[in-house]
Amino acid sequence: MWRDMSPDEFRRYGHQIVDWIADFLADPRQFPVLSPHPPGWLARQLPGEAPVEGESMDQILQDFERLVLPHCTIWNHPRFFSYFAVSSSGPGILAELLAAALNMNGMLWQSSPAVTELEQVTLGWLRQWLGLPDVFFGMIHDTASTSTFHAILAARARAAPEARSDGVPSNLVLYFSEQAHSSVEKAGLAAGLGRKNMRLVATDDRFAMKPESLLEAIRADRAAGLRPMCVVATVGTTSTTAVDPVPAIAEICEREQIWLHVDGAYGGHMAVVPEYRHLLDGVAQADSFVVNPHKWLFTPIDLSAFYIRHPDALREALCLVPAYLRSPSNADAVNFMEYTLPLGRRFRALKLWFVMRYFGQAKIASLIRGHVEMAQRLAQTLQSDERFELCAPHPMSLVCFRLRGSNAQNEELLERLNRSGAGFFSKTVLGGRTVLRWSIGNIHTCWEDLEAALATLRQIATELASGQDPQITLDSVYEPKTS
Amino acid sequence: MWRDMSPDEFRRYGHQIVDWIADFLADPRQFPVLSPHPPGWLARQLPGEAPVEGESMDQILQDFERLVLPHCTIWNHPRFFSYFAVSSSGPGILAELLAAALNMNGMLWQSSPAVTELEQVTLGWLRQWLGLPDVFFGMIHDTASTSTFHAILAARARAAPEARSDGVPSNLVLYFSEQAHSSVEKAGLAAGLGRKNMRLVATDDRFAMKPESLLEAIRADRAAGLRPMCVVATVGTTSTTAVDPVPAIAEICEREQIWLHVDGAYGGHMAVVPEYRHLLDGVAQADSFVVNPHKWLFTPIDLSAFYIRHPDALREALCLVPAYLRSPSNADAVNFMEYTLPLGRRFRALKLWFVMRYFGQAKIASLIRGHVEMAQRLAQTLQSDERFELCAPHPMSLVCFRLRGSNAQNEELLERLNRSGAGFFSKTVLGGRTVLRWSIGNIHTCWEDLEAALATLRQIATELASGQDPQITLDSVYEPKTS
Repeated sequence: MWRDMSPDEFRRYGHQIVDWIADFLADPRQFPVLSPHPPGWLARQLPGEAPVEGESMDQILQDFERLVLPHCTIWNHPRFFSYFAVSSSGPGILAELLAAALNMNGMLWQSSPAVTELEQVTLGWLRQWLGLPDVFFGMIHDTASTSTFHAILAARARAAPEARSDGVPSNLVLYFSEQAHSSVEKAGLAAGLGRKNMRLVATDDRFAMKPESLLEAIRADRAAGLRPMCVVATVGTTSTTAVDPVPAIAEICEREQIWLHVDGAYGGHMAVVPEYRHLLDGVAQADSFVVNPHKWLFTPIDLSAFYIRHPDALREALCLVPAYLRSPSNADAVNFMEYTLPLGRRFRALKLWFVMRYFGQAKIASLIRGHVEMAQRLAQTLQSDERFELCAPHPMSLVCFRLRGSNAQNEELLERLNRSGAGFFSKTVLGGRTVLRWSIGNIHTCWEDLEAALATLRQIATELASGQDPQITLDSVYEPKTS
Repeated sequence: MWRDMSPDEFRRYGHQIVDWIADFLADPRQFPVLSPHPPGWLARQLPGEAPVEGESMDQILQDFERLVLPHCTIWNHPRFFSYFAVSSSGPGILAELLAAALNMNGMLWQSSPAVTELEQVTLGWLRQWLGLPDVFFGMIHDTASTSTFHAILAARARAAPEARSDGVPSNLVLYFSEQAHSSVEKAGLAAGLGRKNMRLVATDDRFAMKPESLLEAIRADRAAGLRPMCVVATVGTTSTTAVDPVPAIAEICEREQIWLHVDGAYGGHMAVVPEYRHLLDGVAQADSFVVNPHKWLFTPIDLSAFYIRHPDALREALCLVPAYLRSPSNADAVNFMEYTLPLGRRFRALKLWFVMRYFGQAKIASLIRGHVEMAQRLAQTLQSDERFELCAPHPMSLVCFRLRGSNAQNEELLERLNRSGAGFFSKTVLGGRTVLRWSIGNIHTCWEDLEAALATLRQIATELASGQDPQITLDSVYEPKTS
C-alpha cells in the first residue's frame, strides 16, 4: 500500500512527461510563445472549489495540455525576444528533476553537505569562467533582486554598524544610474532607506553612468552631512545593455570608501567569451557582484550567483548565531544561512553543475558569441531599412529600435507584433520615446527565427504606414500540436 | 545540429533518471539519511579547474551517484526526523520537471498568464482547505523567512507611511515570543529595525506567548513614545510546536491597531484535518499568515504560501510603478511583482496544483492525521521508558524528549543516534536543558521506521548508562545500493 504515488505509476508518468518534453524541445515553435487568451481564461475554467478526492494523473496531465499550456508565455521558446531571453537546457532540466526527488535544504552544511559544497565548487568555477579573482565569496540566490538586496544589506552594515542595534539611520545614501534596474531602488526601500536618500545619477548619450555626476552627488551629500553608503553600477542595463564605466566608478568608491555593487545579471555572461571579457573590467575592484545563470547560462529559473568580497558584512547584518558560537571561518563547512535572509535553500547548484560540465566553457562561449553575432546582424538589417532606426548601442545581444514615427505607432507596432505570433517583444522608453526591445538569448534561436519575425515586422510596418488593419492574427500562425 | 542536448539524448537520460527516482522512491531506506563523510569530502574530489570542454551525461550521472549522493542529507527520507520532516511526493516531482522545461517567470500577468492564474487558483484552494476567509490575498514565496519579511514590510508601511520617502523611523517596535523562529528577528533586522526595538515576549509553561506580557510590553512602549508596529504569533513553533493563543493576541492587536502576522509555516497544515482546524482559531482576524506546503503538504522545496489581508500595504512598501499607471485592482490580471521583493518568480504553483489534485484533501488529511497519531504513540512509548522524559506538549507530529541525565549525555546521545544511521535527529534547548527533537512528516515514514530508531535509541541509552563506546556505526547499518 503506497502512501505516495507508487513507483510504477511514477515510472509510467515520468516516462510520458520526459517524452513530452523531448518532443517540446525538438521544436518549441509548435507552440505559440504567447497565450492568445484573455486574463482569467485559465482561472475561470478551473473549479473554484478545492479538490476533496484525489484525481488521476491522466486527468491532471490532460488539463495541463488543454488548459495550462495554451495560457503560457513560454520563456524557453526560440521566439521569446522579450525582457532578457533565457533558456532552460536539457542537462539543467534533468538536474531539476533529481533535485526535486531528493528535496534537500542546504541551510546548514550538516543539513545537506552536498548542497553546500556543490554551491562552493560551481560558484568557484563560474568565477574562473568570468575571470574574477578568488577573493569573492560566492552564494546562490533566487533572483538578482535578492542578490542586490543582500549587497545593500552588507553595505548598510559596513557603513552603519549601529543599525543592528539602533535601526537604520536616516542619513545613508544609495547611488545608481537612472538606467539601473528597478530592483535596486526596491532593495533600497526594503532595506529601510527612504527615497529621498536615493540618487539617480545622470547617464551619457550611451546610457552609461557619468562618473563625474556620481562624484558630484557624493560630495554634495557629504557636505550636507549625509553618509554615502553604496553605489550600484550596471554591466548591461535592462533597457539597452549599457555598460557603466566600472573602472572609473570603482576608483571613486575606493577613494570615498563606499561599497560598490555591480549588477551584471545579464551582461556579466559576456565575460565567458574571452574577447568580451573586458566588459567586466573594474569588477575585480568591486565589493559585490551579481550574475544570473538563469538568464544567459542555459540554467533553468531560478539561479542568481552573488559574489561578495566581505561576507562577514552579511553576518553583521543578518546573522543571529551568538558571536561566541561562531566558528572561525571554515571553508570546508560553511553554513549559508548565516549570510542570507531566507533560511531554506534548495539544491540549485546541481543544475549549474550539470550545465557547466555538459557544455563546458568553450561551448557556452560559442553559444553566447552566436547570440551576439545574430544581434549585430539584426541591427544591420534593421538599419538598412529606412523605416526603422536603432535607438541605443548594442554591445551584447539586445537590439533597441523603433519605427520612425510616433510613440502611438510604436505601441501599435509592438501590440500587433506580439499578437502576430512572430515572437514576444517588449518595450522601453528612452528620452521620452517608446522603443522596442529585441533580445536574443534562447539556446534554440537561429537566424531563421529572426528572419521570420523580420518579415512580419516589415509587413506590419507597411500596414501601419497605409493605415491598414492587421492582416496577421495569431490563428493564422499557430498550428496546434496534433498529438 | 543541436545546440542543446538533442531530443533523443534528453529522452534517453530522462528515462534513465526517472527510473532511478522510481527505484529511490520504492525505498529511500536503501540510502543513509546522513552523509558519513567529513566536511569538504565532495569538494575535494571535484576538479578545482572549471570545465572547458563538455563532458558526457554518463560521466556526470556517474559522479552524481558516486560523489554527490553519498554526501547528501536526504530530506525526502522516511528516517529524516530532524528540523521539520518533509516530503517530496511523486506528483510534485513530476510538476517540477515540467516547470523546468517551460522555464517561465511570472513576474507580470503577461509574462506568463498561467503562472499567475494557477497561483491564484491553488492559493484559493489551500485557503479553503485551511478554513480561512477569502479576504486573504495569496501569493507564493520561496520560504517562510521571505513571507514573514514581506509581512513586516507591509506592517512597516502601514505603521509608518513616511518610511517610503524618509527611511525607517527609529521608533517602530516588533513583538514576538522568545520561542518564535529566528527568521522573525532576522526579517526585522533586514527591514531596518534595530534589535533594541524588538521585544521577546515571555511564554508560559507550554512555551506559548503570554498575552498579558504582550499587552504590558505594548503599553510600556507607547508610554515611552514608541510605535508598536507588528506582532508575530506562531502556530506550531520550531522548538516544540507550541501554539500561541492567537484569539487573545488578535484581540489585543485589533484594539491596539497593530499588524498581526501568524507564522503557521509548519503547524498551519493541521487545519487541513477537520478535527484539528481549531488550532487556527483567531487566524481569520490576522493581517497576514504564512504556511509552507513544502513542509507538510508533500510539495517539493521551495513553496511558501503567504496570505495578506491588505495587499496594498505591500505595494506601498515596494511598488515602483508610478501611481498613475496602477490599474485598479484587477483580480484577473494581477502583477505579482508589485507585491514582492524578488522580481522573478518561477512556476511554483504547478507542483501545488499537481499535489492538491492528485491527493485531494481527504488523502492529505489522512496522511497528516497518521503522522500525528504516530507522534502520539511515540510519545507514549518514550514515556513508558523511565530513562526518558518528555519535555513539551506534543499537539502535532513533533516529540521533544531527553534522557534523564546531563546535557552532555544528551548531546552524546544525539551524536551517536545520528551516527548510527537510525535516522537524523535535531536538538533544541528548553529552560537551559538540551532536548532532542523527533519530527515525523515524511510521506514514507511508518511505525516500523520509528520502532527501528527506538531500538537504536534504547541501545545507545544503555551504552551511555554503562559508559560503553558506541556499538553501532554507520557502516553496520548502511548497505550501499548494488545497481
